[in-house]
Amino acid sequence: MSDAAFVAVDWGTTSFRLWLLSKSGTVLAERRSSEGMTTAMQTGFAEVLASHLAAISAPEGLPVIICGMAGARQGWVEAGYVDVPANLSEVLDRATPVLGQKGDIRILPGLAQRAEQTPDVMRGEETQLLGALSEHHRSGHQLVCMPGTHSKWVRVEDLNVTGFSTFMTGEMFDVISKHSILSHAVADAQSFTGDLPAFRDAVKDIYENPQMATNRFFTLRSGQLLHGLSATDAKAKLSGMLIGLEIAGAHASAPKESTVILIASGGLGALYKAAFDALSIDFTIIDADDAVRRGLIAAATTIWH
Amino acid sequence: MSDAAFVAVDWGTTSFRLWLLSKSGTVLAERRSSEGMTTAMQTGFAEVLASHLAAISAPEGLPVIICGMAGARQGWVEAGYVDVPANLSEVLDRATPVLGQKGDIRILPGLAQRAEQTPDVMRGEETQLLGALSEHHRSGHQLVCMPGTHSKWVRVEDLNVTGFSTFMTGEMFDVISKHSILSHAVADAQSFTGDLPAFRDAVKDIYENPQMATNRFFTLRSGQLLHGLSATDAKAKLSGMLIGLEIAGAHASAPKESTVILIASGGLGALYKAAFDALSIDFTIIDADDAVRRGLIAAATTIWH
Repeated sequence: MSDAAFVAVDWGTTSFRLWLLSKSGTVLAERRSSEGMTTAMQTGFAEVLASHLAAISAPEGLPVIICGMAGARQGWVEAGYVDVPANLSEVLDRATPVLGQKGDIRILPGLAQRAEQTPDVMRGEETQLLGALSEHHRSGHQLVCMPGTHSKWVRVEDLNVTGFSTFMTGEMFDVISKHSILSHAVADAQSFTGDLPAFRDAVKDIYENPQMATNRFFTLRSGQLLHGLSATDAKAKLSGMLIGLEIAGAHASAPKESTVILIASGGLGALYKAAFDALSIDFTIIDADDAVRRGLIAAATTIWH
Repeated sequence: MSDAAFVAVDWGTTSFRLWLLSKSGTVLAERRSSEGMTTAMQTGFAEVLASHLAAISAPEGLPVIICGMAGARQGWVEAGYVDVPANLSEVLDRATPVLGQKGDIRILPGLAQRAEQTPDVMRGEETQLLGALSEHHRSGHQLVCMPGTHSKWVRVEDLNVTGFSTFMTGEMFDVISKHSILSHAVADAQSFTGDLPAFRDAVKDIYENPQMATNRFFTLRSGQLLHGLSATDAKAKLSGMLIGLEIAGAHASAPKESTVILIASGGLGALYKAAFDALSIDFTIIDADDAVRRGLIAAATTIWH
């Protein structure tokens, strides 16, 4: 580990990912755990970080760059926000040091949109965005989709973030599936992919009829009662409805000529790909894990060059 | 109680209301309790009914007319559905007898819409509708709103139900308030009325931008973080958003020239009145309690005339 130059950490609400990196950005070791902010608030942020560094025998005192909810008010140290509109490079200039630690530890700020009617915040996604756009930079309007519990859609023009919108898609899916009357309709659903017609039809239906969202949710119950709708189709439809609603909203808020960039991984990325295909929306996909690591490396090399 | 001619019961999922009525429909006694279907499934439907009849010293063996979830598959006796399009009088002709009881007990059917894309069901609201339209009948297209946990909007033309749509407004409000990240933003909210600007603004915003629903939900969190949005305003906004979304969907599904009729009572009725006012939608209001009792009386006098 003599090549080790710094440590990069993506510290979310319920997830923790750490990379030990060389000066050139080569990954020397990696750690993943569920010790997100929620856990670290109880067990201590310094302790969680130290235990992972010990597990990979990292040299003591390496500089550490962190993005995500560790910088929230209830996190390790509040790292503030860069207000949009802003150039993404401002995120690199505004890292907040964590004082009283052995090495140089800094947390990147989030982004805030302070508009009266559409206030919005993000923490962590700004670093993904930085990583993605530094590699896939294009001129003109870009509309960047980062799906998740709280999906973020960012409007970018030449590395300037002009605005962004959060959609509570993943959380709504979770809450409706677990706590509403529809929990009965989706119980015992099997896993599904974006190829399922129920998913694609629901995406298209709600994209065209977003005002029917809370009505279409109920059709999962009445479809089960009247047409024997299966639990798997019901769950796929609920997912398609919420993703279709999100895409309708994000599209309506962006310049029509925008290029769509999807930053995602795994099963969720595949669902959004299928949704864009169903809606005949052209897009470029960038792996989310790669993007956040690349963004952290960009920050580290800027700070400790 | 020698005038007592029959008993009318509105038996919902979580509520039970009973009226002892004379032949002409005069209320001689009334009972209200929370022994809805959910409770009666445990304690017995016959037992719940008998205990309320005993409490008002009702003569034995009176005919009983029932509407609502007591007629669901998991209720007392499954009372089936009248399929729409249908004339509302068909509901009166299709009451299902509860066999093996002392008196003549019948449960009214619900309505079902078996369309492949928009299946829908109601139980209980068809009786409200019957009561409301028998007193306030008009020719032409009517759009009848019955707000609640699962709000029902019914398209009527000359007492013919041409179609209807359920919106999960009340349940979504409940589930989001209690189980999502927004529970923090609305905790400790004080009671509010439809006069609150936060409510009216949210109704208008979502009516015009329904595709932004799951984004606007998140602004309750970011508004709290960035602008110190109060819990009361956040809760009023969430209510306004969900009601505005419902009205946008219901309006889009009905002929433009429809007369809007609101069947509601109490605080919920007042919120919908304020929402219609904010959107400059003309409407007639009918008390929901009166309507369901009147519908049950119409059914009883038709069956036992």
